[in-house]
Amino acid sequence: FIRESLDGANVADVAAILDELSMAESIYVLRLLENQFSADILIELDEDTLTRVLKEMEIPEIAGLIECMDSDDGADILNLLSLREREEVIGYFTDRQKSEQILELLRYEEDTAGGIMAKEYIRANKNWNVVQTINEIRRQAENVDKIFSIYVVDNKQQLLGRVSLKKIVLASEHTKIEDIYEDEVISVPTYMDQEEVAEIMRRYDLETVPVVNVKNKLVGRITVDDILDVIREEAEEDIQAMTGISDTVDEYDSVYRLTKARLPWLLIGIVGGLLGAGFIGFFEEGLNKVTALAFFIPLITATGGNVGIQSSSLVVQSLASRSAFDDSFGKRFIKVLLVAIINGLILATFVFGVVVFIYKNDISFGMVVAIALFSVVLLSSFMGTITPILLDKIGINPALASGPFITTANDLLGLAVYFLVAISLLHI
Amino acid sequence: FIRESLDGANVADVAAILDELSMAESIYVLRLLENQFSADILIELDEDTLTRVLKEMEIPEIAGLIECMDSDDGADILNLLSLREREEVIGYFTDRQKSEQILELLRYEEDTAGGIMAKEYIRANKNWNVVQTINEIRRQAENVDKIFSIYVVDNKQQLLGRVSLKKIVLASEHTKIEDIYEDEVISVPTYMDQEEVAEIMRRYDLETVPVVNVKNKLVGRITVDDILDVIREEAEEDIQAMTGISDTVDEYDSVYRLTKARLPWLLIGIVGGLLGAGFIGFFEEGLNKVTALAFFIPLITATGGNVGIQSSSLVVQSLASRSAFDDSFGKRFIKVLLVAIINGLILATFVFGVVVFIYKNDISFGMVVAIALFSVVLLSSFMGTITPILLDKIGINPALASGPFITTANDLLGLAVYFLVAISLLHI
Ligand SMILES: [Mg+2]
Ligand SMILES: [Mg+2]
Ligand SMILES: [Mg+2]
Ligand SMILES: [Mg+2]
Ligand SMILES: [Mg+2]
Ligand SMILES: [Mg+2]
Ligand SMILES: [Mg+2]
Ligand SMILES: [Mg+2]
Ligand SMILES: [Mg+2]
Ligand SMILES: [Mg+2]
Ligand SMILES: [Mg+2]
Ligand SMILES: [Mg+2]
Ligand SMILES: [Mg+2]
Repeated sequence: FIRESLDGANVADVAAILDELSMAESIYVLRLLENQFSADILIELDEDTLTRVLKEMEIPEIAGLIECMDSDDGADILNLLSLREREEVIGYFTDRQKSEQILELLRYEEDTAGGIMAKEYIRANKNWNVVQTINEIRRQAENVDKIFSIYVVDNKQQLLGRVSLKKIVLASEHTKIEDIYEDEVISVPTYMDQEEVAEIMRRYDLETVPVVNVKNKLVGRITVDDILDVIREEAEEDIQAMTGISDTVDEYDSVYRLTKARLPWLLIGIVGGLLGAGFIGFFEEGLNKVTALAFFIPLITATGGNVGIQSSSLVVQSLASRSAFDDSFGKRFIKVLLVAIINGLILATFVFGVVVFIYKNDISFGMVVAIALFSVVLLSSFMGTITPILLDKIGINPALASGPFITTANDLLGLAVYFLVAISLLHI
Repeated sequence: FIRESLDGANVADVAAILDELSMAESIYVLRLLENQFSADILIELDEDTLTRVLKEMEIPEIAGLIECMDSDDGADILNLLSLREREEVIGYFTDRQKSEQILELLRYEEDTAGGIMAKEYIRANKNWNVVQTINEIRRQAENVDKIFSIYVVDNKQQLLGRVSLKKIVLASEHTKIEDIYEDEVISVPTYMDQEEVAEIMRRYDLETVPVVNVKNKLVGRITVDDILDVIREEAEEDIQAMTGISDTVDEYDSVYRLTKARLPWLLIGIVGGLLGAGFIGFFEEGLNKVTALAFFIPLITATGGNVGIQSSSLVVQSLASRSAFDDSFGKRFIKVLLVAIINGLILATFVFGVVVFIYKNDISFGMVVAIALFSVVLLSSFMGTITPILLDKIGINPALASGPFITTANDLLGLAVYFLVAISLLHI
C-alpha cells in the first residue's frame, strides 16, 4: 500500500514526509521502495534525519543505495560516515566505475568546486561528428540525468569548449563537433570556493559549469540545482553568524539543540555587559555628580551598534560579489569616512539640540553627548569596515563582523569614548 | 577597434566595464556594437547605470534594442521607463509577436511568477511526433535560447506535462509525444511570489518551471538564471532590512546615496535613544540612591537585543522555507517559550553570581538585575517571535523584525522592565 501510494510522488515530498516520521518508520519505508527511489529520497533528507537513518542501516544496504546515486551525492553520503564505516561501505561496492568516481571526489575539500562537482556529464571529442556524439549520449543516458551542454575536449581530455544539446538536435548528422562548438567556455578550477562558483554561475547565467584541474583537463561538472543549495546554505550560515547562533539549527529542532546553539553567544554578550558594568563602575563618582550621564548610555551604545552593523553588512555584501573592477581600498576607505562624518555631524547636531533645548541640560553637557556620539559614529564605521575585511583575509566568515561578539566590543568601545569625553569636558 | 576588442567578450564582463565608464562613453560603446550584443549588455547593467543610459538614449533606439531581448528582459526595461516613454517605445515596435508578448508581461506584478516569466519556450502538442517537435524547435531556435524541457499541452493549450530534450534526441522519429512525456510536472501560477518560486525550483531541482494561469493554460516559463538573480535581490533586501539601510545601495554608490540610505534608520535609533534617556530621567531619584542601577543598563539592553535578533531570524528563516509539514503555531510557541526560559534561567543565575559575589552588591540588588534580565529574555523572545509573523501576515518583509526599529523598541522595553523591577524590589 505504501509502495503504491508513494509511486509517482516526488522524491523531495517523500523526503519531507520521512523527516517527520519516526526513525523505524522511515527505514521501513526506505526498505520497501526500489533502490533507485530510496537513494533519491535519501539525498533529499534533512542532514539530521539522514545521519540517524544511516546509523540504523546495514553497511551493504548503504553501499547499494550509494551506487544508485550521482557521484557527487554518493561522495556527500560517504563524507557523513566515520572513516571506518566509509572503508566498509567502499568494500561493498560492486560498480567499479561508480566507486572510482566517488573515491576521486572524496579527495576534494567539501566547499570547493571539486567538492560539489559530479563525474556525470557528456564529453565529446572535437573530432567526433553529431552521430557519434548522440551515440555517446545514448550510452550515458542512464547515468547522466541533466544534459544541457556537451563539453568538447581534445585527445588529451583538455577542455576546448561546449556545444548545446539544442545545436546537436538541429545539426545534420555528419556535421563535425569541431565546426559547431563554441570555444568561449567558462570553466572553474577544482579548488575554487563554492561561493565564488555560485557567483560565476549567476553572473554568466549558467545551468552547468565544467570543472578543470590545473592542467585544464576536464574532471567534472557542477549543476545549478546544487548551486541553489550552496547559496541557501551559505546564506543561512551568514545569518547565523550575524545573529549569534552557533549551529545550523532551525525552528524545528529540539529545545535542547536550540538552547545549545543560542546560549554561547548570549553568554558572550552577558560577559560583555558585565565588563561594561564594571567599567561604568569606575566612573561611579562622576555619575553621582552628573546623574544625567546615565540617561544617554543606551543612546550611545545603540547608535554605535547600528552604525557598526550597517557598515559591516555593506562590506560583507561587496566581498561576496567582488569583481575585477573594484574601487581601490583607499578610495573606498575615504568614502566610508565621508559618509560617517556627514551622518555623525547630522546626528550629533540633532542630539545636541534635543539634549540642550528639550531636555534642558547645560550646553557643556550637550557637548559631551554630541561629541561622544560623533566619535562613536566615526569609530563604529571604522571598526565595521575594517573587521570584516580582516576576518576575510584570515579566512574567517566576514559575516561574523555583524555578530554579537563585535557588537559587544562596539558597546564597550562606545562606553569608553562616552566616559572619556565626559571626564575631559566636565572635569569630573 | 573597440568593436573588435569586445568581439567575443562575455556580455556580463562588458556590462561590468560599462558600469565603470562615463555615461557618454557607455552610450558610445553601445551604439557601436550590433543591436543584439548591445541589448544583451543592457540587460546585465547595474540598475543605476541602466536608468541613466536609458535617459540618454533615443526612443526608437530603445525600441530597437528591446526587440532583440527576451520578452521578460524587455518588459523589465519598459518597467524602468515613465508611462509616457513606455507608450512611445511601444509605438516604435516593429516585431508584432514580440511586442504582444511584452505587453502581456507588463500586466503582472513585478515580483510574482508572472513578473519574472518569459514568453520564450517550446510547446509541443501531445499529438505531435518527434519530427514535428524538432521542427517546432527549429522554427523557434532563434527566439528560444535555453531549451531543456519541452512543455506538452492539449488542444486547449492546457499544460499536461513535460519531455526533456534528451528524450527527444534519443527517441525514434515517429514516436508520439503522448507516449514519452512525463505527466508529473511541477508548475507555478502567475500570481505566486517570486521567493516561493525560487524555493520550489530549489526543492525540486528544476532548471525551468512552466507558469500557468488560473485555467491551467500554459502562459510562460521561468528559467533558473533569473531565479539566481531573484535570490540575490531578496537576500540583499533582507540584509538591508536587518541592518537598517533603506535602499539597495552598495559600497560603490556615491557618498550622497550611501548617506541618504543609512541616515533615516540611524535617526530612528537616535529618537529611540532619546526617548530612553527621557525615560531613565523619570527614575533620576532612584538612580541617585542606587547608582549601580546605571551600570547594568547596557547589559539589559544588549541582551534584549541579542535574544530578539536570534528569535526573529529563526522565524524569518522558517517563513522562507515553510513546507506543508510545519509544526503547528502552538507547538512552536511552546518551544520558543521553553528555550527562552532555559536560556533566561542560566543567564540570570550567572549574572546574579557575578553581581553579588564578584561585584559585591547586595543580594536584593543582585535579584533586581537577575529578575530583570530573565524577564527581558522572555519578553524579547516573545517579541522576536511574534513580530516577524505579524509583519509577514500584513505583507511586510519579516526580515524588518531584526532591524533597527524593532531593536530600538526592544531597548525601550528592556529599560522599562529593568526600572519597574528595581522600583518594586528596592522600594525606591
Ligand atoms: Mg560534496
Ligand atoms: Mg564558504
Ligand atoms: Mg544573470
Ligand atoms: Mg548533483
Ligand atoms: Mg539534488
Ligand atoms: Mg559564506
Ligand atoms: Mg544593541
Ligand atoms: Mg519582470
Ligand atoms: Mg518578495
Ligand atoms: Mg535540491
Ligand atoms: Mg530571462
Ligand atoms: Mg539573464
Ligand atoms: Mg524577501
